[in-house]
Amino acid sequence: MSEFDLIERFFRQKWAAAPTQQAQAATDSIVLGIGDDCALLQPAPGQQLAVSCDMLVEGRHFFADVDAAALGHKALAVNLSDLAAMGAEPLGFTLALALPPARAQDAPWLDALSDGLLALAAQHACPLVGGDTTAGPLNLCITVFGQLPAGQALRRDGARAGDELWVSGTLGDARLALQALRGDIALPPAALATARARLERPTPRLALGRALRGIASSAIDLSDGLAGDLGHILAASRVGACVDLDAASNLIAVRACLAGASGPFGQDFWRRTVLAGGDDYELAFTAPAAAHAAVRAAAQAAATPVTRIGRIEAAPGLRPTDGAGQPLVLTAQSFDHFG
Amino acid sequence: MSEFDLIERFFRQKWAAAPTQQAQAATDSIVLGIGDDCALLQPAPGQQLAVSCDMLVEGRHFFADVDAAALGHKALAVNLSDLAAMGAEPLGFTLALALPPARAQDAPWLDALSDGLLALAAQHACPLVGGDTTAGPLNLCITVFGQLPAGQALRRDGARAGDELWVSGTLGDARLALQALRGDIALPPAALATARARLERPTPRLALGRALRGIASSAIDLSDGLAGDLGHILAASRVGACVDLDAASNLIAVRACLAGASGPFGQDFWRRTVLAGGDDYELAFTAPAAAHAAVRAAAQAAATPVTRIGRIEAAPGLRPTDGAGQPLVLTAQSFDHFG
Repeated sequence: MSEFDLIERFFRQKWAAAPTQQAQAATDSIVLGIGDDCALLQPAPGQQLAVSCDMLVEGRHFFADVDAAALGHKALAVNLSDLAAMGAEPLGFTLALALPPARAQDAPWLDALSDGLLALAAQHACPLVGGDTTAGPLNLCITVFGQLPAGQALRRDGARAGDELWVSGTLGDARLALQALRGDIALPPAALATARARLERPTPRLALGRALRGIASSAIDLSDGLAGDLGHILAASRVGACVDLDAASNLIAVRACLAGASGPFGQDFWRRTVLAGGDDYELAFTAPAAAHAAVRAAAQAAATPVTRIGRIEAAPGLRPTDGAGQPLVLTAQSFDHFG
Repeated sequence: MSEFDLIERFFRQKWAAAPTQQAQAATDSIVLGIGDDCALLQPAPGQQLAVSCDMLVEGRHFFADVDAAALGHKALAVNLSDLAAMGAEPLGFTLALALPPARAQDAPWLDALSDGLLALAAQHACPLVGGDTTAGPLNLCITVFGQLPAGQALRRDGARAGDELWVSGTLGDARLALQALRGDIALPPAALATARARLERPTPRLALGRALRGIASSAIDLSDGLAGDLGHILAASRVGACVDLDAASNLIAVRACLAGASGPFGQDFWRRTVLAGGDDYELAFTAPAAAHAAVRAAAQAAATPVTRIGRIEAAPGLRPTDGAGQPLVLTAQSFDHFG
């Protein structure tokens, strides 16, 4: 089918038929959607525009046999997660899609891909406004646009000594799924299913990000692991942090399924898993200790669990400790896409 | 080198060192550039945001041995051309870049790529504000952002019967270069050099697009050829057009080099070339006949040649004629990326 037919059938018409109120509400800020040289967006008065872009490549970010709906979900989720980490609300996104010839003719696969993508888009009132399709090795590149009141962005450079360090949700499970799918570790079926859902269908924490405006001093989303991503906050803010790895590794959801399982599942394994992590798409953020109750209230308002796992300090560097506050020596490298 | 080092070395630092006044002026609308979860842009009050996205794939949109600086130029140029076709002025762009391992370590190649990209960006005051790099088959995906006064976009759906049909610049040369590089035709060296410059370093017609606000009734950029792209205007506007293919094919720049050359270079060849075209990145636009002088004045103000090549009519369809207005019967397909 032609490029035009593909977009029309699997994306434009399907979105136009979306039944949710959110999908319809989103159109208020879209002056012109798919079908012209550019889309036209109208941010609300006084708002800044937040922009982020992520590219997903077969064999690098997902397996060739990935469920297409999960792939569609994830491609948008990782971008929405960047909006969440800035405290922005979504306006819309573009999708550029390179498809091998067989995929371009595979209607069920394309249907599932756009189902997964558009369901998440509708949930967050974030319409597809344009993009590109071409023949080529499978590649999805999404650029997402959001808005937020001028001056209220949650940046990486605002952490201060004395701030508390928080994370949302659960950590490490996506990495465990990846290790299991690669055959590096074995997980019981229930644990694998839980972990795999975290790897393939991450939840962008948009409500939490918005609720933390004016409360958090810095934020980042956890895509490459706690060590690497927290490292970006520390570097940008020119501070260090003490991180309780036992508190953090208690946030690994599948640990509960692995009590008594054979394998490498000792305390050191969990600590390394949470530190190296990757693909969790939770938020890590800092806030003044005086805002502790405000953070709890924001998390409750956003219906998103948060856990305090450390404290920002003036001395540079990331200092892992155990649950009793004793220093730990670990070597864990963040996932680097050219590593 | 790591993803972070690659961006820092070849893009962020190089832009920060850009000497042009335009590059510096562009930073006024960029609240936050590369280095956080999102970039933050501040469109001017009352402006709408124009967004476009194009993906370039090795073997599909460029040859593996393409000059890296030309590739960088073209990847941004094709996106800026979409802004031009809406009458928007550039604000910034994101770049997602998938690199095979050998390219990721090839500093001279990356240096040339970013040179070509950033030189065009500086020329149009359009900074790189963010993006993504990953390992993968070579793929460049750029999303570009522009602004324009609300309601003044040059859309595809505004052409009316009686409007004149115009094109900017020269047509067909990029296609001739492609045919020659594929070995389908032979061009003398001077003709090939001229044609190849058009294929590899197209000129986005941003000044013309802006000058045509309030004058043109519709516009599109010519990426897939006159037949296909004009077809989009006709379909969106529910009109037809009569197109003088001899006037249009006189705009093929390399024709002058081919007087007396052997090969397929007859009148029918030129007519087909201009109709099927592709990759010219000129503007095709319509304007009321009463605005003829205003179009000429806008083109002069933008220092961009324009040529009237036809007229919009109520009856649907594209009707090619010769220079005397006699109907021509041709079969020419627009370039389709899944064709």
